Amino acid sequence: VPADSAGLVIGSGDDAAVSLREGAAVTSVDALVEGVHFRMPPFSPADVGHKALAVALSDLAAMGASPEEAYVQLGVPEEVDDDTLLELADGLGRLAAEHGVAVAGGDVTRAPALLCAMTVVGSVSDPAAAVRRGGAQPGDVVAVTGALGGAAAGLLALDRPELAAALEPAAAERLRLRQLRPFPRLAAGRALAEAGATSMIDISDGLGADAGHVAAASGAALGIEVERVPVEPGVSELAGAAGVDPLDLALAGGEDYELLVTLPEQGLEAAVAAVAATGTSLSAIGEVTPGEGVLLSEGGAATRQPSGFDQLRSLRAPGALP
Amino acid sequence: VPADSAGLVIGSGDDAAVSLREGAAVTSVDALVEGVHFRMPPFSPADVGHKALAVALSDLAAMGASPEEAYVQLGVPEEVDDDTLLELADGLGRLAAEHGVAVAGGDVTRAPALLCAMTVVGSVSDPAAAVRRGGAQPGDVVAVTGALGGAAAGLLALDRPELAAALEPAAAERLRLRQLRPFPRLAAGRALAEAGATSMIDISDGLGADAGHVAAASGAALGIEVERVPVEPGVSELAGAAGVDPLDLALAGGEDYELLVTLPEQGLEAAVAAVAATGTSLSAIGEVTPGEGVLLSEGGAATRQPSGFDQLRSLRAPGALP
Repeated sequence: VPADSAGLVIGSGDDAAVSLREGAAVTSVDALVEGVHFRMPPFSPADVGHKALAVALSDLAAMGASPEEAYVQLGVPEEVDDDTLLELADGLGRLAAEHGVAVAGGDVTRAPALLCAMTVVGSVSDPAAAVRRGGAQPGDVVAVTGALGGAAAGLLALDRPELAAALEPAAAERLRLRQLRPFPRLAAGRALAEAGATSMIDISDGLGADAGHVAAASGAALGIEVERVPVEPGVSELAGAAGVDPLDLALAGGEDYELLVTLPEQGLEAAVAAVAATGTSLSAIGEVTPGEGVLLSEGGAATRQPSGFDQLRSLRAPGALP
Repeated sequence: VPADSAGLVIGSGDDAAVSLREGAAVTSVDALVEGVHFRMPPFSPADVGHKALAVALSDLAAMGASPEEAYVQLGVPEEVDDDTLLELADGLGRLAAEHGVAVAGGDVTRAPALLCAMTVVGSVSDPAAAVRRGGAQPGDVVAVTGALGGAAAGLLALDRPELAAALEPAAAERLRLRQLRPFPRLAAGRALAEAGATSMIDISDGLGADAGHVAAASGAALGIEVERVPVEPGVSELAGAAGVDPLDLALAGGEDYELLVTLPEQGLEAAVAAVAATGTSLSAIGEVTPGEGVLLSEGGAATRQPSGFDQLRSLRAPGALP
């Protein structure tokens, strides 16, 4: 436990950790299971540790929270050696250090597959400062950080290395890293919360599916113009080589861990600048309207279904329930 | 999420839960894995849910903390049906309700074995109020709540039902429930914290091993007079039928989830009364002395090893990693 971690009084080694924090606590859990969410290879142990923490922190980012502590539960099959666990802990620990997160507790047990169940705790100044999924208002702009489709394209490149020959080596590597080493948009999430975000979610299931969660929670419709959706460089080339539509990867691929946000139109310009200051972009991709569900349009006309791309699902490991 | 749960603002259904609490947060994680910590049968799905939460809450009890929230991560094999999950959730939810714990978040994923990873969060009035493992002082009394050996005897009774014929049916059932449905000593833990406990730990690994953890953290020796260790009724009869020493079950069986506590001798009488008011007993079993390790004595003479009862270990499912 870093000595300077804000508020943490007792770390690993006792029955529980004790921490003091200002404001309200924000807590999320997430698990990665071998054979379900990853395979080794192509994932290295350090990739597994990184990704397990990153996807958990991404949920805090989507609340606009500042991360503080992580608790790690490892399930370890008998055949996994200590070096593998040390590498996993190193990948996790490096990401934790980069974001000022204290690994405050943990538990290791036997399990039939390698698994890493994370609990992350962060804070917001008061409960009203947490950005929920249910606050999107008709008239709000729909926007997304960064670019989409990279994680799904990276998975394709990892599963079928011959496809990556269509790309520059550096571009192929960047796509693979989008799958192996997602970046939790914590600073962007805080910037968007301060810029007046009315709702926010991280894109884990895919833009269409996650927009659907916001629409359902908000009691409004999210209109998305698909030609405005930022697509990660290299995704089109890789999708072309694989014979899939790059927009399917961007709209339904999932695991990009970018933030989908709604905010009043007059706040957009300031939000773009605030997100730019965190090192990524914010792109307006549509508008909240009265109604329900996700309305995808292309060239002004209603278009494809927002989720349920069976072709893509079949490319991925057996997914999370439900 | 119960509407009246103290301080919880946003429960399941958003990216994270948001909570306000007075004082300092106390957080612990614990996991149960099928084939490692339980088998079904003899565990019912409701037993699994109960025990997963109970063993996690037991860590909060050992800090003297008041429980507030639980976060559940379920790993579910394909062949497990929805009814099983509902029964598990019911067992967990009933125990949560009994202790005023809000199930504030969760996550369900595929896994090769049924597993339940819990995170529990409670509070103490301030960090100094949390009872750690490292505060035992020479001269303190060593004491234990309730009685020991029941969980190990219950496991024997479940594994070898013919042994239970030596007992009254109600006595055999009580032992089985000590294994299947441990009771987290939350009220006793708070009472002991208020009564001036200098160190506390819950007995999960076994009295000898857990006393060793306190001794190591405190830089002192824990002397335990084995004839003073309270043994659960029925354990002697069951151990006799099995041909094992009942004291082995009481000293090394583990999973009793009673509290091992040290406190100044002048506070013992009040502590006994305070624990009695929570519905269980507190028994003095020894004294903290200068030195290191655990010193077991019988009739005034040094006796058996405090841990490493290989005979017992072989009776249990393959254990958790260190």
